[in-house]
Amino acid sequence: MIEIDGNRLNGRVEAFAVIGATQKGGVNRQALAEGDRRARQLLADLARARGFSVSQDPMANLFIRREGRDDSLAPLLIGSHLDSQPAGGRFDGALGTLSAFEVLESLEDAGIETERPVVVVAWTNEEGCRFAPGCMGSMAFSAGEIPSEWHRKLATDGAPFAGELTATIESLPGAQMVPLGFPVHAYLEVHIEQGPSLEANDIPIGVVGGIQGTRWLDVTVRGQTAHAGTTGLAYRRDPLRALTAGLANLYEAIMPADADARFTIGRISVEPGSVNAIPEEARCTVDIRHPDPDRLDELEKQVASAIEKEAGQQRCSVSIARSFDMPPCTFPPELQDTIERAAANAGFKSTRMLSGAFHDALFVNRVAPASMIFVPCRDGLSHNEAEFVEPRHAVAGCQVLARATVSLAGETRR
Amino acid sequence: MIEIDGNRLNGRVEAFAVIGATQKGGVNRQALAEGDRRARQLLADLARARGFSVSQDPMANLFIRREGRDDSLAPLLIGSHLDSQPAGGRFDGALGTLSAFEVLESLEDAGIETERPVVVVAWTNEEGCRFAPGCMGSMAFSAGEIPSEWHRKLATDGAPFAGELTATIESLPGAQMVPLGFPVHAYLEVHIEQGPSLEANDIPIGVVGGIQGTRWLDVTVRGQTAHAGTTGLAYRRDPLRALTAGLANLYEAIMPADADARFTIGRISVEPGSVNAIPEEARCTVDIRHPDPDRLDELEKQVASAIEKEAGQQRCSVSIARSFDMPPCTFPPELQDTIERAAANAGFKSTRMLSGAFHDALFVNRVAPASMIFVPCRDGLSHNEAEFVEPRHAVAGCQVLARATVSLAGETRR
Repeated sequence: MIEIDGNRLNGRVEAFAVIGATQKGGVNRQALAEGDRRARQLLADLARARGFSVSQDPMANLFIRREGRDDSLAPLLIGSHLDSQPAGGRFDGALGTLSAFEVLESLEDAGIETERPVVVVAWTNEEGCRFAPGCMGSMAFSAGEIPSEWHRKLATDGAPFAGELTATIESLPGAQMVPLGFPVHAYLEVHIEQGPSLEANDIPIGVVGGIQGTRWLDVTVRGQTAHAGTTGLAYRRDPLRALTAGLANLYEAIMPADADARFTIGRISVEPGSVNAIPEEARCTVDIRHPDPDRLDELEKQVASAIEKEAGQQRCSVSIARSFDMPPCTFPPELQDTIERAAANAGFKSTRMLSGAFHDALFVNRVAPASMIFVPCRDGLSHNEAEFVEPRHAVAGCQVLARATVSLAGETRR
Repeated sequence: MIEIDGNRLNGRVEAFAVIGATQKGGVNRQALAEGDRRARQLLADLARARGFSVSQDPMANLFIRREGRDDSLAPLLIGSHLDSQPAGGRFDGALGTLSAFEVLESLEDAGIETERPVVVVAWTNEEGCRFAPGCMGSMAFSAGEIPSEWHRKLATDGAPFAGELTATIESLPGAQMVPLGFPVHAYLEVHIEQGPSLEANDIPIGVVGGIQGTRWLDVTVRGQTAHAGTTGLAYRRDPLRALTAGLANLYEAIMPADADARFTIGRISVEPGSVNAIPEEARCTVDIRHPDPDRLDELEKQVASAIEKEAGQQRCSVSIARSFDMPPCTFPPELQDTIERAAANAGFKSTRMLSGAFHDALFVNRVAPASMIFVPCRDGLSHNEAEFVEPRHAVAGCQVLARATVSLAGETRR
């Protein structure tokens, strides 16, 4: 029976948190920048010290391979990412990558030979904050090509994507270059929940059944700017009045009625933005999520109709554009069963759940069976320097990954 | 009977609109910048050509004086300002200043001697857009001193106030320097309404009885940022949900119930401002206006209580700070009677009204009886390059100012 080394795992998380450490205890290790490169180098050094082979592909996805009994078989892939948000936490991504590496070391320590190779992956740019979109590495891996327009992208700090990608690859000169994409038997990823429900229900393991669909809308309401002091009600065409009324209705209507729906306004602004001027234009973003694609369509219509109704009353016009549309994804039930059995086998309570956020697993699931193992994070906080995972929960997630790995890669006693 | 030259007046408005002209037909003549200096120079040149004396004070307020029979009497002061918004109209300020100068020329043309001197004034920085606050010139004039902290102010373009003021004064080397503040018999100012009511009621002359009180509030609602996808309704503490609900209630409650009230949200923003993050903080400005100071207090309480109620429901906290508080001002009834008689005498329909916006007259009224003559502007548009005053309305305002000037300064046939 495989047993992971919890102290080694939590110590590794501490060690990686030093790379790009922020004053408030988080990390700033944005994709393809200096900190990201140093984290890749450290992982590659640890891998070589254990005799694992290290390779990378043209997207700088980093692979660490432990051979199986039959190396012609498609490997089991396990991992996550090492990049972070600019004021990110030390667990988002790193915990999953280091849990996967801990599984590789534990297999080695226990002298377990697997039927298939097991490959640890650290995907490039999951976060998407320095270069959009997120999940670039897994997206290109599953597509088998890098979209040509990515090479013309610029970072938020002005650096060109193509140059940063090349420099990152060159910062690991010892890693063998492999082509983009290869056959994968299955993919598993440990990740923090980034939400409060596991902690609130005191359950250490979430078995992820899929990722809910997300649609982003850009809403613009246009009225007429006028002087706040001189313009009576009858003469006002106030787009912010229309927008706030529409949003107030939607906040009341959407989420209480449908527990699976998520409705969030993350940005709002007005033009010209003078304290004493009725706005000419009011804008906001809308983030709607749902596991059911038909309900996403219905919610989009509901948003449009509520805002258009209020805009009509204020003699304002509305335009709504989709800026992002990601259909829901369902992970194969067999893989969820495997994780559930592994959790029970390791003595941990588990629950099936959906992921509210994207992950690399969503893209890998397009070319191979994929699923995820969630662990609780304190107060549901993530993308935040205060992000925290209890050591016992980190150990639990890794232990379940280890059992599932042995089950999926096939154990053959030497 | 004095008659102004309407063609000369409208031609002058055209001529001044060339200084700082924008492509869309407006002007950019911000206070103490190049365009403002050139407008002052042109007015001073016109004044000297007619033999009037030109002076300025340490705030660069510009004065053009036509002597009366008894020069020891306090002068009648008439005028407005020459500075504009960055994308301003050609009438706001310039029409009042050039109407006052037209009255001076018409007195000269008709050979009318007045008992008192008549002084035309162009106040410095009424708009307050390049340097805050607005009405700096009239404020300092009525206070008799320049607040010392103004000298440390920087323009929105980075230029230091003290340097720009000195350079503006030095750009009129021929003007006699006079101390700040002098006794004033009365002050009259022609101005565009900057609102739609005169045009809507087809009345050419507004007799301004006062300026409504204004209070500005900075509202901050604090909640907790969290991931839009992973955070269910029960775990949300969404400050924007609270703020939009509060504002939607206030828009419905305040203005329909009280026709004298004005309630405007000119700025709104959220932090961190990510499309997929529930905001940590939502902020807005509130501009409330009312002619009755007690109602201003009540409205402030109503705003606070509506937002606090909604914030409580979302487990958010609220802080509200006053950023500006200007009590209502009432102009002397006798001066309004004088304007009303002048309008009737010139054959124009007039109506008494309040000003929703500040003007220099508010500050002059602290040291001398003051009132204003409003003329209609198209669609109530102002602070806008499309601002437009029909020539016949410009003429009407100037004609009423001329009659009121003769009445207040006292006519003595030579």
